[in-house]
Amino acid sequence: METFAAPWALACPDAFPSQEAIVQIEIWSDVVCPWCAIGKRRFEAALADFAHRDDVDVWWRSYELDPSAPRRRPEPLVEHLADKYELDQQRAQEFQDFMTSMAAEEGLAFRLDIAQPGNTFDAHRLLHLAAERGLQDTVKERFLIAYLSDGEAVGEPEVLARLAGEAGLDAGEVEAVLTGDAYADAVRTDQRAARQLGISGVPFFAFNRTHGVSGAQPPDVFAQALDETWATTRPLEPVGEAGETTCGPGGCA
Amino acid sequence: METFAAPWALACPDAFPSQEAIVQIEIWSDVVCPWCAIGKRRFEAALADFAHRDDVDVWWRSYELDPSAPRRRPEPLVEHLADKYELDQQRAQEFQDFMTSMAAEEGLAFRLDIAQPGNTFDAHRLLHLAAERGLQDTVKERFLIAYLSDGEAVGEPEVLARLAGEAGLDAGEVEAVLTGDAYADAVRTDQRAARQLGISGVPFFAFNRTHGVSGAQPPDVFAQALDETWATTRPLEPVGEAGETTCGPGGCA
Repeated sequence: METFAAPWALACPDAFPSQEAIVQIEIWSDVVCPWCAIGKRRFEAALADFAHRDDVDVWWRSYELDPSAPRRRPEPLVEHLADKYELDQQRAQEFQDFMTSMAAEEGLAFRLDIAQPGNTFDAHRLLHLAAERGLQDTVKERFLIAYLSDGEAVGEPEVLARLAGEAGLDAGEVEAVLTGDAYADAVRTDQRAARQLGISGVPFFAFNRTHGVSGAQPPDVFAQALDETWATTRPLEPVGEAGETTCGPGGCA
Repeated sequence: METFAAPWALACPDAFPSQEAIVQIEIWSDVVCPWCAIGKRRFEAALADFAHRDDVDVWWRSYELDPSAPRRRPEPLVEHLADKYELDQQRAQEFQDFMTSMAAEEGLAFRLDIAQPGNTFDAHRLLHLAAERGLQDTVKERFLIAYLSDGEAVGEPEVLARLAGEAGLDAGEVEAVLTGDAYADAVRTDQRAARQLGISGVPFFAFNRTHGVSGAQPPDVFAQALDETWATTRPLEPVGEAGETTCGPGGCA
């Protein structure tokens, strides 16, 4: 069984989308990540069946699979994979076909033959803006489909600006992020937290920082994680008796 | 036994002083709070004897006992207390004498006869600046002693600026905070978290958001909270088997 670092050794997230939800789920993920899209669907299926789903919030955390990538790689994905992992092109193609068929089972129409991989740092910065605007899931979904199905070059600022606009973000705010360095620290904080947790692959799902699921596991695993997290979410354990040693708005005891 | 809200229903703190510590202790407290200073000494005594004290970080959270207070109240503290709580002045004086003798047992020389109560919102904003500069405990200590022992008007910006400088903060940074509204949101976030936790008096100590101590309890209660927190700090519980469903820097499984 894998183990992960103590959750409180983590960089604290900047903010959660809601401060009211009882179960806070953080999902480390990249845009150029087939298993992340498949895992998103499997997780969503479990969440839809979870009785307490209205008490759950989801926060997409940044994880760059290829931080040194250029904005857009000139070669097709299959060639890049064959080069990078020293596979023959036939094997790389078989892998793409396998991922495509796995995705189809979740209702996703992957077109990896036209995929344009590239650097995702700016996409992650926009996902932090989207979180502040209550649009993180919508933008995450748009970016994933853009890369995996639509052949969009998600490392290019003008492509990101268009996609972000389609997902409902304000054009001026998006432009300001893309031309500046807003949310760069937030992306790095997420990735530092991933390292501290011991995450070496994505998607990775943390539930209230008490339970973790690694990978695009079947919906019943996510259901189990939701149930177990719900069952173990408890109030602070009071130590000692409060006694008469506090000051409050009504004066000191 | 008091109970408090589920810790993950809380507003997430902006940042912890260190992202490495295993035990993160948050202390909600005000500057104009006798029990807060006494509780600080009792807590410090327990922490000094804790075997894992190097793995502990402390974060002072904002809690205004009297948010509607003016910068400086014109009357002596004893008169203000008598008015506010409809005590005769003799009783208010006895209470002050009691607090002073409790403080003396912790080595604190309270001078409540010269105390100048006032609004503490700006003091809390400066404590957030101090946290970012690694000086939060030093500044917190200076503000508490200034109010409780030195008769300083801790609601007045020029007094705060002087005290913050004595504690090592940069004069220009302090001036910028006091003349703007930096950290106002951070103060409000801390106070929202206090409400969500059900905190109705300070000091209140949360340990890793799993254990809580309300009030200036004896050092052995803090020692127990440290021990119990340490014993229950554990890694994320993995749910399911990781399987071959992740993408990593080395490619997708």
